[in-house]
Amino acid sequence: MTVSDVVELEGHIIDSGLMERAFTVVMDLGGEFDIEEFRVGTSKDKESYCRMRVIADDEATLHPILHELHQSGATLAAPTDATLTPAPDDNVVPDGFYSTTNHPTDVRVDGDWVGVDNIEMDCAIVVDRDGDSVSAETKVLNGIEAGDLVVTGDAGIRVKPPERPRDSSGPFGFMRGGVSAERPSASLIRDIAEAIAETKAQGGRVLCVAGPAVIHSGGGPGLARLVREGYVDAISAGNGFAVHDMERSMYGTSLGMDVETMEHPRKGHKHHIYTISEVIRAGGIEDAVDEGLITEGVMYECVDNDRDFVLAGSIRDDGPLPDTITDAVEAQNAIRDQARDADLVLMLSSLLHSVAVGNCLPSTTRTVCVDINPATVTQLLDRGSAQAVGMVTDVGTFVPMLAEELLE
Amino acid sequence: MTVSDVVELEGHIIDSGLMERAFTVVMDLGGEFDIEEFRVGTSKDKESYCRMRVIADDEATLHPILHELHQSGATLAAPTDATLTPAPDDNVVPDGFYSTTNHPTDVRVDGDWVGVDNIEMDCAIVVDRDGDSVSAETKVLNGIEAGDLVVTGDAGIRVKPPERPRDSSGPFGFMRGGVSAERPSASLIRDIAEAIAETKAQGGRVLCVAGPAVIHSGGGPGLARLVREGYVDAISAGNGFAVHDMERSMYGTSLGMDVETMEHPRKGHKHHIYTISEVIRAGGIEDAVDEGLITEGVMYECVDNDRDFVLAGSIRDDGPLPDTITDAVEAQNAIRDQARDADLVLMLSSLLHSVAVGNCLPSTTRTVCVDINPATVTQLLDRGSAQAVGMVTDVGTFVPMLAEELLE
Amino acid sequence: MTVSDVVELEGHIIDSGLMERAFTVVMDLGGEFDIEEFRVGTSKDKESYCRMRVIADDEATLHPILHELHQSGATLAAPTDATLTPAPDDNVVPDGFYSTTNHPTDVRVDGDWVGVDNIEMDCAIVVDRDGDSVSAETKVLNGIEAGDLVVTGDAGIRVKPPERPRDSSGPFGFMRGGVSAERPSASLIRDIAEAIAETKAQGGRVLCVAGPAVIHSGGGPGLARLVREGYVDAISAGNGFAVHDMERSMYGTSLGMDVETMEHPRKGHKHHIYTISEVIRAGGIEDAVDEGLITEGVMYECVDNDRDFVLAGSIRDDGPLPDTITDAVEAQNAIRDQARDADLVLMLSSLLHSVAVGNCLPSTTRTVCVDINPATVTQLLDRGSAQAVGMVTDVGTFVPMLAEELLE
Amino acid sequence: MTVSDVVELEGHIIDSGLMERAFTVVMDLGGEFDIEEFRVGTSKDKESYCRMRVIADDEATLHPILHELHQSGATLAAPTDATLTPAPDDNVVPDGFYSTTNHPTDVRVDGDWVGVDNIEMDCAIVVDRDGDSVSAETKVLNGIEAGDLVVTGDAGIRVKPPERPRDSSGPFGFMRGGVSAERPSASLIRDIAEAIAETKAQGGRVLCVAGPAVIHSGGGPGLARLVREGYVDAISAGNGFAVHDMERSMYGTSLGMDVETMEHPRKGHKHHIYTISEVIRAGGIEDAVDEGLITEGVMYECVDNDRDFVLAGSIRDDGPLPDTITDAVEAQNAIRDQARDADLVLMLSSLLHSVAVGNCLPSTTRTVCVDINPATVTQLLDRGSAQAVGMVTDVGTFVPMLAEELLE
Repeated sequence: MTVSDVVELEGHIIDSGLMERAFTVVMDLGGEFDIEEFRVGTSKDKESYCRMRVIADDEATLHPILHELHQSGATLAAPTDATLTPAPDDNVVPDGFYSTTNHPTDVRVDGDWVGVDNIEMDCAIVVDRDGDSVSAETKVLNGIEAGDLVVTGDAGIRVKPPERPRDSSGPFGFMRGGVSAERPSASLIRDIAEAIAETKAQGGRVLCVAGPAVIHSGGGPGLARLVREGYVDAISAGNGFAVHDMERSMYGTSLGMDVETMEHPRKGHKHHIYTISEVIRAGGIEDAVDEGLITEGVMYECVDNDRDFVLAGSIRDDGPLPDTITDAVEAQNAIRDQARDADLVLMLSSLLHSVAVGNCLPSTTRTVCVDINPATVTQLLDRGSAQAVGMVTDVGTFVPMLAEELLE
Repeated sequence: MTVSDVVELEGHIIDSGLMERAFTVVMDLGGEFDIEEFRVGTSKDKESYCRMRVIADDEATLHPILHELHQSGATLAAPTDATLTPAPDDNVVPDGFYSTTNHPTDVRVDGDWVGVDNIEMDCAIVVDRDGDSVSAETKVLNGIEAGDLVVTGDAGIRVKPPERPRDSSGPFGFMRGGVSAERPSASLIRDIAEAIAETKAQGGRVLCVAGPAVIHSGGGPGLARLVREGYVDAISAGNGFAVHDMERSMYGTSLGMDVETMEHPRKGHKHHIYTISEVIRAGGIEDAVDEGLITEGVMYECVDNDRDFVLAGSIRDDGPLPDTITDAVEAQNAIRDQARDADLVLMLSSLLHSVAVGNCLPSTTRTVCVDINPATVTQLLDRGSAQAVGMVTDVGTFVPMLAEELLE
Repeated sequence: MTVSDVVELEGHIIDSGLMERAFTVVMDLGGEFDIEEFRVGTSKDKESYCRMRVIADDEATLHPILHELHQSGATLAAPTDATLTPAPDDNVVPDGFYSTTNHPTDVRVDGDWVGVDNIEMDCAIVVDRDGDSVSAETKVLNGIEAGDLVVTGDAGIRVKPPERPRDSSGPFGFMRGGVSAERPSASLIRDIAEAIAETKAQGGRVLCVAGPAVIHSGGGPGLARLVREGYVDAISAGNGFAVHDMERSMYGTSLGMDVETMEHPRKGHKHHIYTISEVIRAGGIEDAVDEGLITEGVMYECVDNDRDFVLAGSIRDDGPLPDTITDAVEAQNAIRDQARDADLVLMLSSLLHSVAVGNCLPSTTRTVCVDINPATVTQLLDRGSAQAVGMVTDVGTFVPMLAEELLE
Repeated sequence: MTVSDVVELEGHIIDSGLMERAFTVVMDLGGEFDIEEFRVGTSKDKESYCRMRVIADDEATLHPILHELHQSGATLAAPTDATLTPAPDDNVVPDGFYSTTNHPTDVRVDGDWVGVDNIEMDCAIVVDRDGDSVSAETKVLNGIEAGDLVVTGDAGIRVKPPERPRDSSGPFGFMRGGVSAERPSASLIRDIAEAIAETKAQGGRVLCVAGPAVIHSGGGPGLARLVREGYVDAISAGNGFAVHDMERSMYGTSLGMDVETMEHPRKGHKHHIYTISEVIRAGGIEDAVDEGLITEGVMYECVDNDRDFVLAGSIRDDGPLPDTITDAVEAQNAIRDQARDADLVLMLSSLLHSVAVGNCLPSTTRTVCVDINPATVTQLLDRGSAQAVGMVTDVGTFVPMLAEELLE
């Protein structure tokens, strides 16, 4: 047993994104569609038309689909009059009131379509009958008076989103309504953990691109555990990341600061250089682990569990470590190999390395970008993965929470 | 005389945005289209098909359209083999080389489609014939060797952008390739000036939402001239904006700092409070202008030229001025009236006031957002104007350059 | 039993901040000082001189103090030659090497002070004796050769930080070395929790200024617990915060999104308006709690535990709620009362309200600012509390971690 | 003829920064000082005392100095009673009213010091005599009533800024009032131009560190002129900067976009790769200039006028160009040579390269940092130049305006 209803879309519905949005709404909200008629506008100035039956398992599923289609410009194939319900009190809307978009809107009263005046988002529509003449306008909550005839439900309403101009000129871009849902942090971290677990369960590889802020902000132990337990298969980072991580193992500090007590012990600032100097003396990271110099942390777990790591050099580096690939072309090639093997890439607070890895990824690799700077997240998401999620948060709280989700 | 060619699109081409992109490409690049066949996938799992003739005035117009369609996943209806040209030297590509996208790609060699290995963006495709066996892979510039058979032109190439997953679950969103063209600052300011001039020429109204940073960063005189000359019809701002502007007229300072010499004269910090106190004593801004207290600046020009202004109060305000509407509901109503009258809204460095104005705008009003914070620009553009342009720049340099464009 | 040593400072040591830094170093690192001689430069161009005995409980405490004083420009009163130790290997520094600042530096060899060439931060100093002539220069780690005579320890080194120019002109400000210690996130949250617990233990009051992002990012339940358990005595927020919080209680959503499942239930976008409408109908927040409409959340706990709250209106508001003070002047007065009563203010993701509260605070109130935008944190810290801590992080992870620290 | 007055400072005036501030105020505002008495607190818990005569050429200079000293905690050596003036009207302050700081404050009435209640910044002090009892409190502008006895002038007021705690513990840092003067953009650019002209007039060298955004945002021609005219002696940049710059010369585009018309010509996206490929074919940048391939732009002017340039490679690079130093250690050495030669460094929109250059600079080199991201500017200014200026603005407008100031 299914339920269904028929909607129509008309106009420049392909290039204004309405058809795409209609299909997306139906699929996202758990419905099916059956295109009963589709006439494409065969040239630039001809309009298209689509009549689509929307099918769902039950009314509870169908209703929100129709509502969203409606807000996007679809109209019911068999229009009825709008339902008008008196406001129960001043400043109070009747149950089920229709909440406006910011698009031009008509409302059907006594069989006629009436334009709604003063269109504004998130308002109620109030219909005024003055003898034979009927008018409609938006009202904000504090404009509602008891008894006002407020439109409730979706019936009898027609929304007309702006269409893409036929000629684009001047500075203005055509913006399509993007619902950029912010999501609660803890809940999104849970979802990312699930995606990583799923990738691993399917035999996939997880590559983690990590900046030094991961260590400095206290995320080192969490990432080390993810490497040890096999949730992270490979690390792509720079010289600084590895030095910070190993400084933490050798001295308990990061750039000279004790990451537990936050005190700066004597000569703390030298720890950074000493770490590099000692690892050079040992011959490299693997040798430093072998001779017991490094006993914990991300680099330790990489060596101990035989995980692949690439450290790419940069002109900001101290040292660098013997393991750091100082030639940019050679480093790109190593990164390219890592990128090709990855099924999911976790980019943590490292714009330079994330861009370098991102440049080598096909559009089919899943990407997670975490950075405290929204511009960095936007830039990385724009690089072209088709399956991507960005999170503007603090890696110092993200990594421990992610590790907890995956490991506990 | 026109030229034309026929391309095909196949797959989930509506909800993955490919049809929209195809139409947009043709129109943006100055072509026309004629849909010769269109079969819509009537349900979620059925694919659609489109055969479209692309028409242009000449080859020079047609070629880039076909190229872009191609990069977006369209294929030529009558495929031919790819053109292979030997690389003239190590690290040097032949003229007209095909530059890859990051999408899965096939290349046609000897009548067969061969998958391209190691897909990566902005690379060349090199074809290797080893006896009967043919393979193709991407190579970066520094991987090219003299004599490599590099694909040139667009013929014989098939790009397959990822399609929107039929089931959306988990944290990953479906990203569509957005070419977010950064534009040279001076050139974009020129375009915005033209849009303002055009709006005025058509009898439209320009509303400027302005934050105190406009005055503090030195943009006051420019904005005052735009008000005087009628390029700005109305000002929507807060108490702070008006006080800064009038402090500049009364004392030559902004928050106590001389905006020309940048020196802090004696008691400079009191100028802010004095300005408010004096305007209160006079009875309001208009009275202060009338009695010669205020002799220049944005507020002066508003009074002198009878331009509408709304000053909305906030809990951060000093004073406030008698003209400031301290009640938030009353202020919203005044802003609503301004917003409804506007044909183009210029939002300058004021998140709070821009959001308040934006909330009242229909989706058809043109919007220009200028702020030094990219997150502010993004947030304002997301609010739903269909015709919008954002610019991440310094109002202290933007306003003088805009005024110069419009007035000189 | 204590240990001590004597250092000297000379030059424009007061207005260049060196004296202040010297006192701060001694106190921060657990020492005492005894000023043996102090001659102040009595006019602008005269230099000052200070001879100070530094006293500590043991060598382990004294040493880092002397080291830091040294880096800041103090010299040992009885200078000895620098210790020179051969580098054990290429790229390897000897134990205890002296790591340079970026200030002009001399090194004492055979009783003479020799200027160090090519001053650069974080390098080693290598001394070269060529017959009678002695020279010294900085070397980075990868420039060190086995056998190089590297300065170790602090003895025999003289650092000369730039002094404040006697005449300030032009755009350049005099910058003093600010050690801006980034701190690991989890560890800093622990310290903030302790400060709150301490304030409460001393009978103080904690005021929390909260933006809607607290609720939207999932921090609502944590903050509600802090209110219930008495760690937060008062809430200063806006209309939006309260509506989001109560929408969560009434519908399980925030701006229409289910904060657990992140799904958008039917008509989700209306929940925001409904919440306001229902609370208006009930008569206000307290009435809505009393009639069982609101059963959990921050506002519920405020009513149930009789905590003070102020909701200040703004021109962005929907509604607003009957409890929201729409007049800006009246709202400021209510905020002023809250601010005067507070001993510690926790500012969470709300620039507007935090600035309004901050404007009313004396400089003696402790302030904690948490925001994901570093510019917001900087702006709030700059407003003049003498005891302040800022944290650039995600409130959606901060609040749960803070609640866990305090309550578990 | 000079005028003078005597002030006293008492307490922990060195380590709380008050002495430094006092000296700075006198010098910044054009005065002289004569220390008449100075007793240093010889140990941590002992207070210091300073009696200082402030001397200036005239009253107009002396007054603001005394005012600022006063706000910072200095008191007049011979205190008099505060001047009380009735408020002329509701909400109006008398001329010369004293505007409060947020520090604890006393006011002297009838020979007695009375504490001011409800201390808050930027308020007036109102004194209330009720019979024998005298009280004083702050009032905001809208709290003033006609006839209120308002303190005017600086006499009879004592401000007590918080002192640095003797024991520092917990998360709170001791903040000192930083007057972070924002300055009008155009006026600050003028000052930077003067500093560059001055450096050149003294025979100094100007090094410009430039990111690709300089070209992309339209700043290329301006920078090229500065190189040609000798205002910039050397360029430190990356591969991308040089490619963008030469692409502009060869094709008129930057990353494929026409920087004048903002149109994307056919195959625009390939221009970037072609530029690299052609320069490789020619043998390098100098060869490309010699054979007439490159005829304008920054790199052209460097070659044509024999200016030094260093292009340091990175893992993000396409190509790279033959001139790009791909090895990070070798590149650092080249950058180090540039840095040591520079007298003024102009850092334009390039975090990576600016940090690399900054790492090699002594603290005495003048530094100008320009970036649209405030966090980048802060990070660069924090690296330790004693003479530095930062500007948060758009290089696309900054460079043309700077060039105009210097060249026209």
